[in-house]
Amino acid sequence: MALNPLYDDIGKGFVQQYYAMFDDPLQRPNVANFYSATDSFMTFEGLQMQGATKIMEKITSLSFQKITRVITTVDSQPMFDGGVLINVLGRLQCDEDPPHAYCQTFVLKPLGGTFFCAHDIFRLNIHNTA
Amino acid sequence: MALNPLYDDIGKGFVQQYYAMFDDPLQRPNVANFYSATDSFMTFEGLQMQGATKIMEKITSLSFQKITRVITTVDSQPMFDGGVLINVLGRLQCDEDPPHAYCQTFVLKPLGGTFFCAHDIFRLNIHNTA
Repeated sequence: MALNPLYDDIGKGFVQQYYAMFDDPLQRPNVANFYSATDSFMTFEGLQMQGATKIMEKITSLSFQKITRVITTVDSQPMFDGGVLINVLGRLQCDEDPPHAYCQTFVLKPLGGTFFCAHDIFRLNIHNTA
Repeated sequence: MALNPLYDDIGKGFVQQYYAMFDDPLQRPNVANFYSATDSFMTFEGLQMQGATKIMEKITSLSFQKITRVITTVDSQPMFDGGVLINVLGRLQCDEDPPHAYCQTFVLKPLGGTFFCAHDIFRLNIHNTA
């Protein structure tokens, strides 16, 4: 595999597609399709999970209904195995909670002409402001 | 290659070692040793560079002398090529500037019994607070 020259479009496209699905309670269960049954890792607020089943247990346990999300920056880099590293900074507000800054890192890996999400690290950085 | 069971120690150890070097103006040029001449990528505040020479041009162009850094969280994940994905959230203050929250993502790749930094994405998320 080699560097994918479309890494920036792939990164931005994934982020848009993933959050459109994640932020809609009816579609949220479908983000399962982005993760591998065995080879995906998620770290959610420091809690680590492996595999789509465990990841989806976490995601579907989130109790909010309405998410208002603003994406601030999406930085992508090509990887030598054809994958894409993506770092997202943004702000989100769940239901009537106050808005929080957050950071999410994804690694996409090529698989049969498309990509799956091999790594996902999410942190609200509410304790992180000066 | 397989998952490195020591990924968490490797992540935390790298972050400590990298910043100890980066934050000391006398040692800062030595961070060059973490990057590959050709196969390392850096995205610094949206500006992208490839290879140790270009990366070090950017790093050594940073004009601050004194950095006060507080690391808030370090999340690491093992990768199937033996590498480690690391996400750092923290706060830093350069010289007499006000402190800023920042986010930095690293991917370490195994190389001859040690690791090099293949990916580095840095963002101050000052526009990111609620």
